Amino acid sequence: MTSTPVSDTYRLIEAVFQPASIVVAGASANPDTPGYDYVRSLLEFGYKGGIYPINPKGGEVLGLPVYRSLAEVPGTVDYVISCIPSAAVLDLVSACRGRGVKALQLFTGRFSETGRPEAIDLEQRLLAAARDAGIRLIGPNCMGLLYPAEGISFRTDMPKRPGPIGFLSQSGNLLFELTHFAESRGLRFSKAISYGNALDLNESDFLQYFAEDSETHVVGAYVEGLRDGRRFLVALRLAASRKPVVVLKGGRTAAGGRTAASHTAALAGESAVWDAAVRQAGALPVSTVEDLIDMLIAFAYMRPGSGRRLAMVGAGGGRSVLTADLCEELGLAVPPLPDDVEQNIAESAPDLAGWLTNPVDQSILAGSGIGGARVLEWLDESSGIDLLVANVGEPWAFGRPDPERIIARVTDRFIAIAARTKKPFAVVLAPSDYPDEQRWRLVSEARERLVEAGVALFPSVERAVRSLARFSTYWAGRSSA
Amino acid sequence: MTSTPVSDTYRLIEAVFQPASIVVAGASANPDTPGYDYVRSLLEFGYKGGIYPINPKGGEVLGLPVYRSLAEVPGTVDYVISCIPSAAVLDLVSACRGRGVKALQLFTGRFSETGRPEAIDLEQRLLAAARDAGIRLIGPNCMGLLYPAEGISFRTDMPKRPGPIGFLSQSGNLLFELTHFAESRGLRFSKAISYGNALDLNESDFLQYFAEDSETHVVGAYVEGLRDGRRFLVALRLAASRKPVVVLKGGRTAAGGRTAASHTAALAGESAVWDAAVRQAGALPVSTVEDLIDMLIAFAYMRPGSGRRLAMVGAGGGRSVLTADLCEELGLAVPPLPDDVEQNIAESAPDLAGWLTNPVDQSILAGSGIGGARVLEWLDESSGIDLLVANVGEPWAFGRPDPERIIARVTDRFIAIAARTKKPFAVVLAPSDYPDEQRWRLVSEARERLVEAGVALFPSVERAVRSLARFSTYWAGRSSA
Repeated sequence: MTSTPVSDTYRLIEAVFQPASIVVAGASANPDTPGYDYVRSLLEFGYKGGIYPINPKGGEVLGLPVYRSLAEVPGTVDYVISCIPSAAVLDLVSACRGRGVKALQLFTGRFSETGRPEAIDLEQRLLAAARDAGIRLIGPNCMGLLYPAEGISFRTDMPKRPGPIGFLSQSGNLLFELTHFAESRGLRFSKAISYGNALDLNESDFLQYFAEDSETHVVGAYVEGLRDGRRFLVALRLAASRKPVVVLKGGRTAAGGRTAASHTAALAGESAVWDAAVRQAGALPVSTVEDLIDMLIAFAYMRPGSGRRLAMVGAGGGRSVLTADLCEELGLAVPPLPDDVEQNIAESAPDLAGWLTNPVDQSILAGSGIGGARVLEWLDESSGIDLLVANVGEPWAFGRPDPERIIARVTDRFIAIAARTKKPFAVVLAPSDYPDEQRWRLVSEARERLVEAGVALFPSVERAVRSLARFSTYWAGRSSA
Repeated sequence: MTSTPVSDTYRLIEAVFQPASIVVAGASANPDTPGYDYVRSLLEFGYKGGIYPINPKGGEVLGLPVYRSLAEVPGTVDYVISCIPSAAVLDLVSACRGRGVKALQLFTGRFSETGRPEAIDLEQRLLAAARDAGIRLIGPNCMGLLYPAEGISFRTDMPKRPGPIGFLSQSGNLLFELTHFAESRGLRFSKAISYGNALDLNESDFLQYFAEDSETHVVGAYVEGLRDGRRFLVALRLAASRKPVVVLKGGRTAAGGRTAASHTAALAGESAVWDAAVRQAGALPVSTVEDLIDMLIAFAYMRPGSGRRLAMVGAGGGRSVLTADLCEELGLAVPPLPDDVEQNIAESAPDLAGWLTNPVDQSILAGSGIGGARVLEWLDESSGIDLLVANVGEPWAFGRPDPERIIARVTDRFIAIAARTKKPFAVVLAPSDYPDEQRWRLVSEARERLVEAGVALFPSVERAVRSLARFSTYWAGRSSA
């Protein structure tokens, strides 16, 4: 991709995302303020450029001198983060003039999202002033940029390790939630941008950027409204032609649209039309945060594949039956064990021949001399199966004398299969839901090992199976496109 | 209910479930065997009756003397658990003759579920022998009884505290899974029975029992096949007329049915017909373990209510928008804040009047002087809202300086509202998904406090909202029935 000519938008955003210095206007030594959080996040993420806190009161924040105004800041200023009240932002834009500021990111809110005429008017004056000063805006009413490789973050507890996922989000809170619920599954970002009211730089700019960004291999988006629908679809088509793109739309319904207006002043649209347009552009629409996370994990960590014959190991009887039902209801096939696998079983465990079926009931294997992982290896080698699910099955393991050993061994085997399989492969292990520290640690460590090995990890069999169904449909659509 | 005349089935099962002594045939000192697990479980759960391990080798299990045969066991024997190979069960039935044995529960499997003619034949001979000896059978191929109040369990890590839920399960493994994934949410049993192949006592007997059992206030069922469909529906109608009943059916599809046959030899049926019949009987059909757990928790801990106007507090902007969308897609209304709530806001936080909407965006409240819990109290008092969802919002709290204090305070407020509300009320707090022990402990303790206070706890906003939609539909159907 480095040889592909890049667009002006890409060049612009790339420059904005790599500032040589950052000003935090409204910086504060009070730990319960955003002006403290931004400074602390830059320090903790190891941002190498200049960090310049500004506050008329002066003083110190986390060992850094606080400048009383932008005028006092030495040298160039590339990027300004605003945590000051909305009434003061026009003065801030004036102060930025002639200082070489490329972008102003406004955490500052209380603009058009309040629905109030004077706030809407102020927002328009802000836009005019910024244009006049040659400064691009991110926001207002947004968290701004997360770029772990450059040491830029808006919160200290975002993922510090970079990853393959580029994310654009109209909601900053949604970015915390993604991290909160999925960092331990390996949801890590090349860059993520929260852009709020999208007054100047908007969803189309950021999407175009991620389409062209070589550090981004999967794109996720949360959008509530579109500034320019046609441009967005052009950027979406470009992005989807190069990498998987998953789009979550907020404000699909009347109630959601009303809420979106008060959140980011977005005008929401029709759900069915939206879904069709996203699919037509070659991207994948989803409608919940859980589905968004699952599909980002799937695209980031699973081998592509469009076949629909699924096999599962590692579940008990009831779970196996219910999984077969769910697969069939989702249009996946759960064929009986292929002949070559049957033959392996007949040789290794004749007692199970003709009885064991798919999904492979773990309780039937007990005492047979072959385990679920062995059967999974055979299923991986068989041409009769396209999709693999492996359930660690910790509820069963915890009832045995040495669950540590069982879970560690099963995890190792699954990691080995994941490393060599050419098929989409999902492993199921949920965070422990017991008030028992030892169990929590055991599960937590096993999950960490799976994720570090690059395995696609899901918190339930249901979610793994639903994701595989969407995943194979997506790739089938791509191969016929 | 104590004054209602009870059925013969109720009396029979009640006698079986309250044995004065229990024999474990095939007991073993090897911790990796079921014959050890059963003895250990009875000891750890504090079973007060006689526990008699049997094994031809004699010796000791966990300090108890092992008898070499049933003939050596002193006194009466009410209940026998079989962990011996299937080839030996006919001899065991013979040995039980004349010893007053009311029921024989067979963990022993490898009967009709293998699909093999000789095993099917053996199962039939077992049934005939048991009938001839006047002994009722539970199973074969099952885990048997969990009755915490009597100290009876088949595994040491099942919930020791009794609760309001009676559960019948064709799969024993499914009972572990329910416990594993939901004990920390308060999923506790009056009694639960895993009945496997249902050769003699079957789903209809146990359902009839739970319908009449005064210790059971909510009934859950996992069934793969029915021995007698007509009788099951009669029992279901009776149970549903007295208490909420949630039914999960395995083997709804061809693939699921094939798997069910190899699991418990069950013959599965048509999905749509099944759902309609369950609904017509006044019970609630579900199709995943997650839905089953959520609805049991909902019925066990929420006040009944059939209204469909939902309000939520405690989420950020993106989450609020998405929740409004999901509600509307599920047929729930998410009205703007009712006039009385608007008026309270205008008085307490004039700056937010006309901007704040429902769901209540937590980030808009920041710095306003009123918190989400205060707004929830107003929503609880308002006649314009029927259903309440409170999100603890720990992703946000973890970004603040003192998350312990925030989470504890929010939890306290939600507990207080739960104690006095007359509306269905769901609180959202998932198990921590960070590899960080302090966060895990903090979340774990908050969840424990919510559950101990009798609050209906859900692991995601999506699941809370889906459950409330099903819940209000269920109660609307009951009130019109």
